[in-house]
Amino acid sequence: MRVLGIDPGYAIVGWGVVEYAGNRFAPVAYGAVCTDKDTPFEQRLCEVYDGVLDICKRYQPQALSLEKLYYQHNQTTVIGVAEARGVILLAAAQCGIPIYEYTPMQVKQAVTGYGKAVKKQIQEMTRILLKLPAIPKPDDTADALAMAVAHCHCATSRLSGLR
Amino acid sequence: MRVLGIDPGYAIVGWGVVEYAGNRFAPVAYGAVCTDKDTPFEQRLCEVYDGVLDICKRYQPQALSLEKLYYQHNQTTVIGVAEARGVILLAAAQCGIPIYEYTPMQVKQAVTGYGKAVKKQIQEMTRILLKLPAIPKPDDTADALAMAVAHCHCATSRLSGLR
Repeated sequence: MRVLGIDPGYAIVGWGVVEYAGNRFAPVAYGAVCTDKDTPFEQRLCEVYDGVLDICKRYQPQALSLEKLYYQHNQTTVIGVAEARGVILLAAAQCGIPIYEYTPMQVKQAVTGYGKAVKKQIQEMTRILLKLPAIPKPDDTADALAMAVAHCHCATSRLSGLR
Repeated sequence: MRVLGIDPGYAIVGWGVVEYAGNRFAPVAYGAVCTDKDTPFEQRLCEVYDGVLDICKRYQPQALSLEKLYYQHNQTTVIGVAEARGVILLAAAQCGIPIYEYTPMQVKQAVTGYGKAVKKQIQEMTRILLKLPAIPKPDDTADALAMAVAHCHCATSRLSGLR
């Protein structure tokens, strides 16, 4: 199973593609789509869309995993982040990639087995599962990889649950 | 000057194209892009994007006018509306259409000359300026036409102000 995790934004979009088979993970590729703060907002949306479309076409993931967004998130940026999230969902949908959303607690539980884990613990567990020498930078990329790992675990438990 | 006004949403996207010359308005076309509540959300975003892209290509407006979105808006739907707004901004930007945002008070002032006008007064003044027999339905379409009218007035005052 090949999964794309994304941490949405209009300044930095963290992304990570992970392969999961036989209970083992392998990182395929990861990085961040970054836009310049001096670029007009709608052009930044275009760059986010083009970047995500390119990733979807290049790596052909079978699922997109991202965090549920709540309005309680940082209120000064939540509208812009949601607008960027819209073009990310659009790009994935246009490529026919199914989209899965998880709450922060589901991600913590799925990655570390503990629903109250802190961010650093999730990033470190993701690093170990993916056998990476260090936690990827920026944080958005590390968080995106965690989203991909979370979906692999959740999707697997769902399947097991059905057997 | 040809202006597209849009009232963003994921269920109903109101839109209206208005021609403005010599202090006179003429409606070019107006309507609503509607999506079904039983359609998966990301497919609704695709339909909104396709609909707006089609309107932009067909009517070739020189400007897109829409209301600023604040997180204080209806908190249960604001994330979804912002996500739809993102794909609308994307479609316009991909067509090279400049985007203008106005606060509700700026719209009231620009359409009726009175910053505390109520919604019905704005819709009625828009109807009169466009010489329409009745206020268009749904409300989202009427509001979108008001956004287009507001931009024409604002853009004109800005130009006069520079002389």
